[in-house]
Amino acid sequence: MLALKIGGSADMDYDAIADDVAEFVKGEQRLIVIHGGSTQTNEVASALGHPPEFVTSASGYVSRRTDRRTLEIFEMVYCGQMNKGLVERFQKRGVNAVGLSGLDGRLWEGRRKATLKVVDPDGRRRVLRDDYTGRVERVNTAMLQALLDGSYLPVLTPPAVSYDGEAINVDGDRAAAVTAATMGIDTLVILTNVPGLLEHYPDESSLIERIAAAELRDFMNIARERMKKKLMGAGEALSGGVRRVIVADGRVQQPIQKALNGGGTLIE
Amino acid sequence: MLALKIGGSADMDYDAIADDVAEFVKGEQRLIVIHGGSTQTNEVASALGHPPEFVTSASGYVSRRTDRRTLEIFEMVYCGQMNKGLVERFQKRGVNAVGLSGLDGRLWEGRRKATLKVVDPDGRRRVLRDDYTGRVERVNTAMLQALLDGSYLPVLTPPAVSYDGEAINVDGDRAAAVTAATMGIDTLVILTNVPGLLEHYPDESSLIERIAAAELRDFMNIARERMKKKLMGAGEALSGGVRRVIVADGRVQQPIQKALNGGGTLIE
Repeated sequence: MLALKIGGSADMDYDAIADDVAEFVKGEQRLIVIHGGSTQTNEVASALGHPPEFVTSASGYVSRRTDRRTLEIFEMVYCGQMNKGLVERFQKRGVNAVGLSGLDGRLWEGRRKATLKVVDPDGRRRVLRDDYTGRVERVNTAMLQALLDGSYLPVLTPPAVSYDGEAINVDGDRAAAVTAATMGIDTLVILTNVPGLLEHYPDESSLIERIAAAELRDFMNIARERMKKKLMGAGEALSGGVRRVIVADGRVQQPIQKALNGGGTLIE
Repeated sequence: MLALKIGGSADMDYDAIADDVAEFVKGEQRLIVIHGGSTQTNEVASALGHPPEFVTSASGYVSRRTDRRTLEIFEMVYCGQMNKGLVERFQKRGVNAVGLSGLDGRLWEGRRKATLKVVDPDGRRRVLRDDYTGRVERVNTAMLQALLDGSYLPVLTPPAVSYDGEAINVDGDRAAAVTAATMGIDTLVILTNVPGLLEHYPDESSLIERIAAAELRDFMNIARERMKKKLMGAGEALSGGVRRVIVADGRVQQPIQKALNGGGTLIE
C-alpha cells in the first residue's frame, strides 16, 4: 500500500498526479492521499484582508500563525478549494474519492499547544496563547480501513482535531508520516515543487538521490524550511515502521511512477 | 430517524443548533445533517472580486449563476468554512461528526444541466452552456448507513457530483429532501431564519402552522423565493415517503425540540 502526500505549491501538476493515481487504482493498488494548500491559503488570506503571518519557534522552525480567522480561511482553502478540487479530479477519472479533514470522525487527533513560544526578528521572545496548532498523535485507522475496504480513495487534509474537539493546524507532511506509519504502509511518496532534496538549492542538478535512514539527521542542515519539515516527516515515518520515503517532483507527468522508479530522493 | 437541514443565513444560531443536535445524539436518536451556505458564499465571492450573480429560469425560479470560479468559491464556503465550522461545533460537544460533500464517495449523484435557459430582467432569453448546476437523483445510501452504523453523525453539503464526475451546484433543501426520502427517514426538519411559512412575509405573527400534503401546491404562491424551494423540497420529501416536514426557526434556543413540539410550519 502507498501513501501519497501532494504538496500545495502553485506549480504542481494536479492533473498529471490525478492521472497517475487513477492508473494505480485501476491496477488495484491501494492508496491513501494526503494534501496541503499552503500557497493557496496565503493568496486567499491576502485577498480576504487577513494576510498570512509566520512565526519562528525558539528551535528555529517557522510555522503559520493560526488565529481563529486564519483557521477559518485555512479550512476554506484546504478542506474546500484544494480537497474538493482533488476529489473532483479523481471522480472525473472514475476513482471514487472521499475527502476528509482530520476533524471528520476524529481522523487525526492530537494535543493543541497551550502556548506557542516565538522569537521575533529582533530577537524578542513572545508567548502566544490564542494559536491553534498542534501535532497528530492518533489516527482513526478503523475509519480509513473501512473506506479502503469499500474501494474508496481517502483524500485527507489538515486541520486535525484536538482532544477537546477544536480544529488545529498541523503540518501536512508530518500528518502524512504518522498516517503511513499507523496504517502499516510500506512506502510514502511526498510530491513537491522540486525534484527532491537539493544539495545546492535551487540547483536542480544537485539532487541527492539516496539518504540512509541513519544518516538523515546529517542532511537536515542542507534542507530549507519546507524541505526540513518533509525530512522530519520522513524520519518520523521511518521510525514508525514505513520502509521507504521518496521526496519527488510533482510538476511532471507520471510523478508517482517516476518517484517509484528511481526519481527523487529516496530515504530508507 | 431525523434529517435536519440547516440554512445558511447570517442570523442562524449555530451554537444552539449544535447543542440541540448533541442532546438528540446523546438520546441515541439517529440524525443526518444537511446544510447550506448561500449568504456566506455571497460575502466571500464579493470579497474575492467575483460577486454573485443570479439568473431566472423561464419558469420563474431564481438560481445562482455557477461558472467554474463560482463553483470553486462555493466549495470553499460550503465544504470548508460552513461544513468544518459545523463539524468542529459537533466535535466540541462530543458528537463524532463526519463532513462530506456530494462529491465524496459520489454521495449525491445527478445530471448536470447541459444548458440553462434564463430570462434577463429586460425579458431577453439566453442559453448558458458553462453553468454547473443540476439536481440530486441518486444517494449513496450504503455509505450513509455505514457512517450511522459506526455512530458517526453525517454532515452533508452541496455540491453534488454529475454522472461524469463534475461538481454541480444543487439546491440544499431539495438535496435534503431526496436524502431523507431515499434513507427512509420519517421526519425532515428545515431550520431557516423565519419561524416557518408566513402568510404575510415578513410579519412573523402570520405563521401558517399546518399544511396538508395535498394542499401544498396552493401555498406555493405565498412563499417567497427561498421559501419556495423549501416547499418544493417538502413536496418531494413527502412524495418520496417522508411522513412530515417541519420548516422552523433556526435563530432560537432548542430549535429542533421546538420544531418537533409544534413550532414552525408542519407539512404532512
